[in-house]
Amino acid sequence: MLIVGERINTSRKSIAEAVKAKNADAIKNEAKIQAEAGANYIDVNSGTSLDKEPQDLLWLVETVQSCVELPLCIDSPNPEAIKVALAAHKGEAIINSVTAEANRAEVLLPLVKEYSANVVGLAVDEKGIPKTAEERFEIAKKILDLTSKAGIDKEKILIDAVVQPVSTDSNQGREFLKAITLIKTLGLKTIAGLSNVSFGLPNRVGLNAAFLSSAITVGLDAAIIDITDKKIATAVYAGLAIAGRDEYCQNYLKAFREGKL
Amino acid sequence: MLIVGERINTSRKSIAEAVKAKNADAIKNEAKIQAEAGANYIDVNSGTSLDKEPQDLLWLVETVQSCVELPLCIDSPNPEAIKVALAAHKGEAIINSVTAEANRAEVLLPLVKEYSANVVGLAVDEKGIPKTAEERFEIAKKILDLTSKAGIDKEKILIDAVVQPVSTDSNQGREFLKAITLIKTLGLKTIAGLSNVSFGLPNRVGLNAAFLSSAITVGLDAAIIDITDKKIATAVYAGLAIAGRDEYCQNYLKAFREGKL
Repeated sequence: MLIVGERINTSRKSIAEAVKAKNADAIKNEAKIQAEAGANYIDVNSGTSLDKEPQDLLWLVETVQSCVELPLCIDSPNPEAIKVALAAHKGEAIINSVTAEANRAEVLLPLVKEYSANVVGLAVDEKGIPKTAEERFEIAKKILDLTSKAGIDKEKILIDAVVQPVSTDSNQGREFLKAITLIKTLGLKTIAGLSNVSFGLPNRVGLNAAFLSSAITVGLDAAIIDITDKKIATAVYAGLAIAGRDEYCQNYLKAFREGKL
Repeated sequence: MLIVGERINTSRKSIAEAVKAKNADAIKNEAKIQAEAGANYIDVNSGTSLDKEPQDLLWLVETVQSCVELPLCIDSPNPEAIKVALAAHKGEAIINSVTAEANRAEVLLPLVKEYSANVVGLAVDEKGIPKTAEERFEIAKKILDLTSKAGIDKEKILIDAVVQPVSTDSNQGREFLKAITLIKTLGLKTIAGLSNVSFGLPNRVGLNAAFLSSAITVGLDAAIIDITDKKIATAVYAGLAIAGRDEYCQNYLKAFREGKL
């Protein structure tokens, strides 16, 4: 299971302020606590920087990698920002994300190939966000087609089946879980940011944790989460233990001993 | 989803003492808090009473039903105790449990039929507790055969696929979840007491909650749990919401408003 730490994102007010003020210590602290909590990748997102996004994202890449020896998940809708960030990045990044929209793939996939990066394939196409598991599966096939034409290895791809809120459509949790099962039949890895499932509902962390464990039992390979939250960490390690993905429960026991649960 | 409240069980010291002293107020309080927390059935188990089990179980049935208007889950290995308890019980009880062992079924199934009770079919046979999902499925088919020969309606049966600890066999969580999926293809309902999954591990409630939510997403119909525990209640209502089993999330929202999560 790959854990991508989600905390360095300018949609959080404290991060937006730190990026604006170029407060490296604040960003480094966020990187360190996530690394200590068990993150395998640190997500960096400066989406609210608007026209300054390329330089802000570059600053985030350099600042985070100056203090933790981890690869990053470069999270941006802006190909120019991704390009600048990738050039400065050490190791094999995850690019978040391409979609099945040909124009976006055309710009980003050559960069993914050039830098031997991993890439998140978001299950979205020209028609928007799919409603059913089967629609998500069809889009994953299109992404596999686009990436293989671009010469990208299958194992570099992580499909994000796009979690939608259950508050507006009660079937969205079930359809997402079914989509994971279907997409894995293609031999593709899956990734998800899960918190959208609880949008509009109270006790969001409780719902997110239940969803995360359930997604792990159907084979979710990677999650973009706040691993410093003990409820979320418990959902990860408990999920792996009940899914038969933690031999002798050794990771669960280690996480408990380290005070992470 | 049927919730069977598990708290009135003499394996808990306070309950054993209350049964021994015939402290009706203590038992009634346990019944009331479970009913208020949303239990649909109250489990009564006086297994540690040994040769006094029939009269103790009868006392529990009468005491609980004198204060809550709920049917009970009569939980005993002793056919004599079950017989006495059923005769005093109001409504349609759940008998917990028969197995695929013919001698046990021969004694209990006529009682189930006579009292129009529901019955838990424990996925255990002469060979003991199964290891794989497929073995559990085969035993469920034997139980279906035994019950239908005894003239018991299919909808009265709840198969307990028998949760085993992941600490001693890492595959047991996954095999149980797969067993639920298989058994439901027979058109049978499923029930489980989940806490055994975490036997021998720390932070048991965290693991039990993750397992409960995951089991609900694969279709678990009933659970024998402590619904007064907010972590367990959250796992139930969050599990139903993400499984597409709670239209408009109305039960989740109601449980939250009532302070149950």
